[in-house]
Amino acid sequence: MIVLRRHLGDALRRRRLRQGRTLRQVSAAARVSLGYLSEVERGQKEPSSELLGAICGALQVPLSQVLRDVSDDIALAELADGTLVGSELAPPAGPTVAPDVVAAA
Amino acid sequence: MIVLRRHLGDALRRRRLRQGRTLRQVSAAARVSLGYLSEVERGQKEPSSELLGAICGALQVPLSQVLRDVSDDIALAELADGTLVGSELAPPAGPTVAPDVVAAA
Repeated sequence: MIVLRRHLGDALRRRRLRQGRTLRQVSAAARVSLGYLSEVERGQKEPSSELLGAICGALQVPLSQVLRDVSDDIALAELADGTLVGSELAPPAGPTVAPDVVAAA
Repeated sequence: MIVLRRHLGDALRRRRLRQGRTLRQVSAAARVSLGYLSEVERGQKEPSSELLGAICGALQVPLSQVLRDVSDDIALAELADGTLVGSELAPPAGPTVAPDVVAAA
């Protein structure tokens, strides 16, 4: 199963490492505890919208860009695990059958 | 301040309404309570990653696509409120050539 907080944590960690900054530096700038930021980066805590905003602010990265990174990441994971099959976005596979018909078959 | 859960709630509600489905139908399909889904749509509750996955599953929309919608939405809000200024992505000050000018050249 695809879990948003893991991909979000990865995206935040990648941004921080690309800037050559430590957990301590970013947690201080975001005014969150080092342990909390570490848990968020490891996908163990769901950050609230406010704390996510503070972390993005500390990284000087727009939230929209972090979400774009996460969306791209998750799209790859969805392709790999077949989540896209049967979704609104899935390409039609032969004769079209409604998803709920497939589920019931 | 830009608050992710509000934009996320809007995106989920738009998807549901586009499908002509009720809160009751989608909450039943996602196995979440109607009140909870309603609060998520109004940006009053932060959905956990697992519940967000269940709601996307019920809407038959890939999570990546919902996040893309939200990212686009938030990017517009960031442009409007000046969040992008001073960020990694801000265009350099001074003479700038916009990408569309380059593309048109």
